[in-house]
Amino acid sequence: MALVSSNPTPRANIHFTVVLGVLGAFIFFMGFALLTPAIIDLVYGSDTWHSFVISAGIAFGFGGLMWYMFKPQQEIRIREGFLIVSLTWLSLSLVGALPFIISGVLPSFTDAVFETMSGLTTTGSTVLGGTTSTGWENPKIEDIPKSFLFWRSLAHWLGGMGIIVLSLAILPLLGIGGMQLFQAESPGPTADKLTPRVQETAKLLWGVYVAFTFIEFLLLWVHPSMDWFEAINHAFATMATGGFSTKNASVEAFDSAYIDWVITVFMFLAGVNFALHFRLFRGDRRLFFANRELRFYSLVIFIGIVVVSSSLWIINNYSILDALRYGAFQVVSIVTSTGFGTNDYELWNSIGAFFLFLLFFTGGCAGSTGGGIKMIRWMILIRNTVREIKQIVHPKAILPVRIGDQAISQNIQRTVLSFFILYIFIFATGAFIISLFGYDILSSIGASIAAIGNIGPGWGDFGPTDNFAGLPILGKWVLILLMMVGRLEIFTVLIIFSPAFWRQ
Amino acid sequence: MALVSSNPTPRANIHFTVVLGVLGAFIFFMGFALLTPAIIDLVYGSDTWHSFVISAGIAFGFGGLMWYMFKPQQEIRIREGFLIVSLTWLSLSLVGALPFIISGVLPSFTDAVFETMSGLTTTGSTVLGGTTSTGWENPKIEDIPKSFLFWRSLAHWLGGMGIIVLSLAILPLLGIGGMQLFQAESPGPTADKLTPRVQETAKLLWGVYVAFTFIEFLLLWVHPSMDWFEAINHAFATMATGGFSTKNASVEAFDSAYIDWVITVFMFLAGVNFALHFRLFRGDRRLFFANRELRFYSLVIFIGIVVVSSSLWIINNYSILDALRYGAFQVVSIVTSTGFGTNDYELWNSIGAFFLFLLFFTGGCAGSTGGGIKMIRWMILIRNTVREIKQIVHPKAILPVRIGDQAISQNIQRTVLSFFILYIFIFATGAFIISLFGYDILSSIGASIAAIGNIGPGWGDFGPTDNFAGLPILGKWVLILLMMVGRLEIFTVLIIFSPAFWRQ
Ligand SMILES: [K+]
Ligand SMILES: [K+]
Repeated sequence: MALVSSNPTPRANIHFTVVLGVLGAFIFFMGFALLTPAIIDLVYGSDTWHSFVISAGIAFGFGGLMWYMFKPQQEIRIREGFLIVSLTWLSLSLVGALPFIISGVLPSFTDAVFETMSGLTTTGSTVLGGTTSTGWENPKIEDIPKSFLFWRSLAHWLGGMGIIVLSLAILPLLGIGGMQLFQAESPGPTADKLTPRVQETAKLLWGVYVAFTFIEFLLLWVHPSMDWFEAINHAFATMATGGFSTKNASVEAFDSAYIDWVITVFMFLAGVNFALHFRLFRGDRRLFFANRELRFYSLVIFIGIVVVSSSLWIINNYSILDALRYGAFQVVSIVTSTGFGTNDYELWNSIGAFFLFLLFFTGGCAGSTGGGIKMIRWMILIRNTVREIKQIVHPKAILPVRIGDQAISQNIQRTVLSFFILYIFIFATGAFIISLFGYDILSSIGASIAAIGNIGPGWGDFGPTDNFAGLPILGKWVLILLMMVGRLEIFTVLIIFSPAFWRQ
Repeated sequence: MALVSSNPTPRANIHFTVVLGVLGAFIFFMGFALLTPAIIDLVYGSDTWHSFVISAGIAFGFGGLMWYMFKPQQEIRIREGFLIVSLTWLSLSLVGALPFIISGVLPSFTDAVFETMSGLTTTGSTVLGGTTSTGWENPKIEDIPKSFLFWRSLAHWLGGMGIIVLSLAILPLLGIGGMQLFQAESPGPTADKLTPRVQETAKLLWGVYVAFTFIEFLLLWVHPSMDWFEAINHAFATMATGGFSTKNASVEAFDSAYIDWVITVFMFLAGVNFALHFRLFRGDRRLFFANRELRFYSLVIFIGIVVVSSSLWIINNYSILDALRYGAFQVVSIVTSTGFGTNDYELWNSIGAFFLFLLFFTGGCAGSTGGGIKMIRWMILIRNTVREIKQIVHPKAILPVRIGDQAISQNIQRTVLSFFILYIFIFATGAFIISLFGYDILSSIGASIAAIGNIGPGWGDFGPTDNFAGLPILGKWVLILLMMVGRLEIFTVLIIFSPAFWRQ
C-alpha cells in the first residue's frame, strides 16, 4: 500500500479511487477483528456468534470489493490523507456497529454507532443501561453477552493502535495542529525519512503497546476478583485510555486497592508518548526521563493528586491511604482521558470536584493513546503567554519560545494557539446543542468536553454513574462527531468541511 | 502633568516619585467626587453627609500631600505607566471605600473595598442585602441612604470615563493585548501624534459620554416610575456598563417596557467604541456604519436576541413582545457586561440560559465602557482560525489575517491569542479559588467570569437575585483582584507581577 507522500504540495483534484481503495482495505481487515468476539461466544456458549460472523462477512465482502475495484495505483497525497483518516474512523464505526444491530443488543442504528464510535475513539461513553428518548430500554452492561463486552474493549484497543500510528507517523506529515512538533519532540524518525517506513515504525510502537497490555493483563488476572476475561477487557480499555468496563459500576465493582493501583499505573503509562516508551525499552533511560512533556505531565498529575487526595482526606474524612487511592485513580483517569471510575466524583467536596473539572481540559502526552488538548500544547500555550508578558516589558527584544533546548517556531506557536481556540469553539458549540435538549449548563458542558476530549463520563445528567442513552438522537450524533473531531486532532476532520479543501 | 512618553524603550529603573506624584493628583481629584454625595444627603436630609466630607478631606489632604512631595518632574515612561494605571484603580477604591466604613453602611473594610472596586471597574457586583461569612447582616440596597446609592453609581460613571481614556489613549501606547489595533481601528489620532493630546482626546470623548448620559437621564426621567434621582443613577450605571441599581430587584423593579427598551438601547450604545460615536456626532455616518467591529457586535447581539427571545416565546410561553423585551434586555445587558436584570435568567429554559452563559465570554467593543474579551479580539481569533485551516490545505501559501481592509500583523495576532489564553487561565484559577469555599462548579465559574468580565451577576449562589455578601474574605479579595485585572485588560496588571518588569 502506498503511503502518504513526503511532498506536501497539494495538486489540483482529489483521487477518490485512492481514498476508496485504502478504506476498502481497512474495512476488509475489520472483518478479522469482528471474528474474534465470535470465539468468545463459542467459549461461553452464547448464540450471538452469528451476528459477528455476518458482520465479518459484510466487512470482507464490502471491503474486499472496494479494494479490488479501486486498488490504489497512485501514491497518497496530503488531501487524500485527510479524507482517509476521517473516513476510516467513520466507516469502521458503521461496520463495527453491525453486530449490535443484527443481534438486537442495540437495535437503534444511532445507539449502535454511538457505542462503536465511542469504542474506536477510545472515549468510553456508553448508551447501555438507560432508556432512550424514544422509550426503548437498552440492556444493562452486565446483561449483554460477553462477546459484546469484548467487542467494546477490542474497539478501544484497535482505536488506540490507530491513534499511536496516526499521531506519531501520519499527522506530522499532514502538518496538523503542532503535530510536526510532536514528531520533532519524539525520538522517532524525521518526516522525510519516515515515509517509506510508516509500517515499520507502526510495528515497533505496537510491540510496546502489546507488551504493556499483556503485562497489565497478567497483573490483573492474578487477582482473585478478576477472571481472565475481565482482565483482558480492562487491560484493553486501560492501554487505549478507553474506559469501557465489563461492570456498570466500572472499576469500583472489583473493590480492590491492588486492582485500582495497577490500573492507575497503566493509565499513567498509556498517557505517555509511545515513542518514548520504545526508547526506554531499548534502554535509553536518560532520554525518557529528560523528556520535558513527560515531566510536565507528571507534574500536573502530581499536583492533581495532592489537591484531590488532600481534599478527600481533610473534607470527606477518607483515610490517608483511601484518599490517595481514590484521588490518584480519578486524577490519572481524567488527565489521561481514560474515564474509568472508582468513586463518584460528583459527590466529593467542591474543591476536589472542581479541580477534577479543570483536569477535563488537560489530556495526555502527544503520541500516547490519551485524548484532550494534550500536555505539549499546554506547555507551548504557557510559555507563549510568559513570553508575551516579557515582550511588553521589553518591546524591542526578540524572545523565542523554548521547550527544553528546542526553539518552537512561530508557525507551530500559531498552530497550537489556533488548535486551542478551535477546541474551545467546538466544545462550546457542542455544549450549546446539548443544552437545546433541556439539559442544564453543567450537564451540557460535561457531555461536550467528555466527548471532544475522549474522556467518557461527564457531569450532571451525564456523570460517572449515568449514561448517554436518554439523549435525543440529534444530540447523540453531535457527540459522535465531537468524539471523532477530538480524537483526530480537530483539524484533520475540520479541513474537510472547508471550501479551500475542495477548491481546485 | 507629563503624559506617557511616545518612546516605548524602557530604561533601567522605575521613578517611583513620578508614580506617587500622579497618584496623588488622582486621589486629590477623588476628593471632589466624594463631595457630591454629601449634596444628595443635604437634599434628602440625611446625616451621613459627614462621612463623605471627612473622606473628601482625607483625599484632599493625602492626595495633595503626595502631589506636593513628589510633583513629577520627569516624563512618564512605559513602566511607570503600568504602575500608575493599576495603582490608580486600587488606591481610588481604597479612598472611595472610606464613606462606607465611616458611616457604618459597610463597616467591613473588605466589603467596603469590594463595593467600591465593583463600582470603579463598572462591574456592579454587590455585597449589599446579604449576610457575611462572619455573620454580619449588610443592609439591603433600598435601606441605605440615597447618598450611598449615588456614590455607587458615580463610581461606575467615573470608572467608565477612566476606561474610555485608558483604552483609546493610554493602553495603545503601552502596547497592551492588541490595543495597538484598537487604536488603529478607531479613527482617533495615531500613537505618535496622540501623546501631547491625551487630555484633548479625553475631553472630546467625555463630551460624547456626558451627552449620552444626559439624554438617557431625560428619557428615563419623563417616565412616571422614575424620579430624577433614579433616572440619574440608572443613566450613570448604563453608560458605564456598570449595573448597580437603586433597587434590589434591579431594573425589574420599575416593571416598564418603556424603561426596559430605553436602557436596552443605551446599554447597546455604551458597548460601542466611543471614538466611533464621536465621529458620528461629527457627522461621519459612513465610517460609523462601515466599522467591522460594530457590525460584528451587532450581529452577535442580533443572534443572541433571536435565540434567547424565541426560546422564551416557544418554551416559556412569553408573548412575542415580552419575549423580545426580556430577551433583548438580558442579551444586551450581558454582552455589554452591564449586568442589569429584568428577569431571573436562571429560571429560563435551558437553551436561553445556556446561550446567555456563552455570552458571558463575549464583551463589548474596544474603546467602549464594556468589559470582557471584546469583539475585536473574537474577530481576530476567528479569522486566525479560518486562516489556519486554509494554511493546512495550502501549506506554502502566505495567508494574511484581515479585518476589512486592514491586515493584522503577526505581532497583534499573537498578542490577542495570548490575551485570550491568559484570560481563560486567570478565569479558571479564580473559579478554582472560589470553589475552595464550598461553592459548586457553576457558582464558582459564574463568580469568576462575572468578576473578570466586569459583568456583575453570575450563576448559582451568585445569580442575578443573589449577592456576594456570603463569600469569605479571601474570596472577596480574589474577586476584587479579578475585577481589576479584567478591567485593565489583564496585561497591565499582570506584568507588574513579572520578574522581568522589576529587573534592571
Ligand atoms: K476515554
Ligand atoms: K457590569
